[in-house]
Amino acid sequence: MIGLSQIGKIDRIVRRLNDLSQISLTERGVTRLSFTRESENANQLVSRWMEEAGMTVRRDALNNVIGRYEGTQEDASVLLIGSHLDSVIEAGKYDGILGVIVGIEAVQILHENGVQLKHPIEVIGFCDEEGTRFHTTLLGSRAIAGTFREEDLESVDKDGITLARAMREIGMAPSQYRLAARDPRSILGYLELHIEQGPVLEKKNQACSAVSGIAGQSRLEFRVEGLAGHAGTVPVTMRQDALAGTAEIIQTVERIALQYESLVATVGKLNVYPGASNVIPGLVEGTLDLRSINDPTRKEALSRILEECQQIANRRKLTCEFRPVLESPAVPCSSHFISIIESVLEDHYMEPLRLVSGAGHDAMAVAAITDIGMIFVRCKDGLSHHPDEFASPDDIKSGLSVLLNTILKITA
Amino acid sequence: MIGLSQIGKIDRIVRRLNDLSQISLTERGVTRLSFTRESENANQLVSRWMEEAGMTVRRDALNNVIGRYEGTQEDASVLLIGSHLDSVIEAGKYDGILGVIVGIEAVQILHENGVQLKHPIEVIGFCDEEGTRFHTTLLGSRAIAGTFREEDLESVDKDGITLARAMREIGMAPSQYRLAARDPRSILGYLELHIEQGPVLEKKNQACSAVSGIAGQSRLEFRVEGLAGHAGTVPVTMRQDALAGTAEIIQTVERIALQYESLVATVGKLNVYPGASNVIPGLVEGTLDLRSINDPTRKEALSRILEECQQIANRRKLTCEFRPVLESPAVPCSSHFISIIESVLEDHYMEPLRLVSGAGHDAMAVAAITDIGMIFVRCKDGLSHHPDEFASPDDIKSGLSVLLNTILKITA
Repeated sequence: MIGLSQIGKIDRIVRRLNDLSQISLTERGVTRLSFTRESENANQLVSRWMEEAGMTVRRDALNNVIGRYEGTQEDASVLLIGSHLDSVIEAGKYDGILGVIVGIEAVQILHENGVQLKHPIEVIGFCDEEGTRFHTTLLGSRAIAGTFREEDLESVDKDGITLARAMREIGMAPSQYRLAARDPRSILGYLELHIEQGPVLEKKNQACSAVSGIAGQSRLEFRVEGLAGHAGTVPVTMRQDALAGTAEIIQTVERIALQYESLVATVGKLNVYPGASNVIPGLVEGTLDLRSINDPTRKEALSRILEECQQIANRRKLTCEFRPVLESPAVPCSSHFISIIESVLEDHYMEPLRLVSGAGHDAMAVAAITDIGMIFVRCKDGLSHHPDEFASPDDIKSGLSVLLNTILKITA
Repeated sequence: MIGLSQIGKIDRIVRRLNDLSQISLTERGVTRLSFTRESENANQLVSRWMEEAGMTVRRDALNNVIGRYEGTQEDASVLLIGSHLDSVIEAGKYDGILGVIVGIEAVQILHENGVQLKHPIEVIGFCDEEGTRFHTTLLGSRAIAGTFREEDLESVDKDGITLARAMREIGMAPSQYRLAARDPRSILGYLELHIEQGPVLEKKNQACSAVSGIAGQSRLEFRVEGLAGHAGTVPVTMRQDALAGTAEIIQTVERIALQYESLVATVGKLNVYPGASNVIPGLVEGTLDLRSINDPTRKEALSRILEECQQIANRRKLTCEFRPVLESPAVPCSSHFISIIESVLEDHYMEPLRLVSGAGHDAMAVAAITDIGMIFVRCKDGLSHHPDEFASPDDIKSGLSVLLNTILKITA
């Protein structure tokens, strides 16, 4: 084990996080969309750091930046360590970035200490996980996993520019995307360190955790229709108030969600029509988002919600329709990797904690070709996708040490 | 009593409703804003009908059209009968208009039968009740009641044109508005016939009713603030979900409203921020509208709602603020007039029903200077402010007969 005292200060990580955050389109927070001047500048900076860490650097066919640190054993499978270099609009400087920079640092520590492992390590900065520019997520990691689709090239940004055109504009050949796909047999596994993006580690007062997996998700749009009417003239008993019905639906969603420990459920968007203070709402449109690491739990909860909503609608003489928009199964992390990470946590005098990731990550895509393991680092107030996103240097140091020792155990 | 058989067909009313609805700005429904070419055309048409009904016609200083049918007794106080000629945007052809046209018809029947009453009658077509153009209501009836304010002249329409300028553009002298005010001592009372704008008469299966009064109203804006967060990563137990809290508030409003027979309560407008399917709502803004004919009931209910909302907010770690926007007391109809209208209803083999008006009417303003009485006429599905607004000829005929016989009893 490499202890925290051996790692010393992590000024280099902090400096690199700051340097990378300077490469942004906007003044407020970090805005770095894929296949832009900003992403190209970031790629060059990250490439330089990879070289400083003793890696040879290449770009793959989807503009993922890959640094390779050779192992001692010829033909040994490669351990991938990655996260993404793109951001949402007005984001923080940790989401994605931190996993890449800590990955580079882990290798650099090995390199500076003259340690070469049996297996080669590749640190990957994925080009686009957020999907902010082209409205389709996990572009880089899906390319590596071989699940990138031809039609993804036709995704357009807000200016009508396709991904294919954006790639050509920086001198890439979009049709070659298949070359980015990795052979599963050549890969030992994939590790990703990421800020938690939730408040649990803060509440548990712990710097890091393992991740049990990435929650499955159901996203639906719903529409509750009643009868608009004059707010002064229709007795409450005679109303078909779409918003009063929706309020009961939102309460039901919350009540059912609270009955399952592994479930989160959210009504995030709600539009009320006609939306005037003196008119009883006749129509409400909204969204329902359900997530759980346990797919049967999510399905059971969804079916209970749909059933109760119909009962509410019937009782109130409303119509209530749900339309599925997205349905993705849970992606478990490798139980072998989870065990290793938990044992490393214990070596660091932390609880062997495993959290579910309710957010999506590149690991989801990479899981199609290899075992995945994830390490969460505590972030302030559970905040992400916001300029105030923050992970403390101490917690980052813990994360680095957990990642480094996990690498050592996996490749041992 | 003048019976329904003596009134005969009401083709003239139906024709006049149609003729007046043709004077409309839009293809869909009736749009007749005040101090426009449409309102001028309507005034001329209504003036002609008033003359046909044996009335002498004048315009007052706020462009209200007034037809006077003389009485037999010199210096007898005048019975006013009125409603408004303006409409909301894409309205129906009954709201307001019906009261004016039925008032003219009542006088015309007297005139055609050579009947002159002791008291003179004046039928008034008010210039602007809805406030659609200048966003301030009851302009014409407030002028007559002497409660029109100098600053009302500075109200602007969507094009920035003040009421004063709009008046000058049709050749009126805005500063003379005080001349429209009537001397209370010269007035016997005020009657207004109006479509119900609610579903109660339809449910009670009756053509007409008396009105007990116009409900008092509290309108408030509220703001529920919590903490936005990632829909996937924040456990439901750790959320400060502004929308989940608001759902409980809406349920509370409905529950409390159902505990008072005379109360209606409506959350009509709701905006949810940031309003994305994958983000826990951090802020909700909405409106609360409470109405009751019983002011203490309304105030008690409001104070209970505010108290329970604070409890909900505290329990959920939200902040909840209500800001009063409008507070208007109930305006009762004259109990003498109610009794007369109810006795007339019974003469017509109808139940002596008195409904609360949850909507505002010109009668509210006129109540400042004289006793008011109102007659409601059933309308289809309780619908108003909509092109599909409808009152059947049979119901209009009943309304006419009730109005006419009420006039006879009041002036007897």
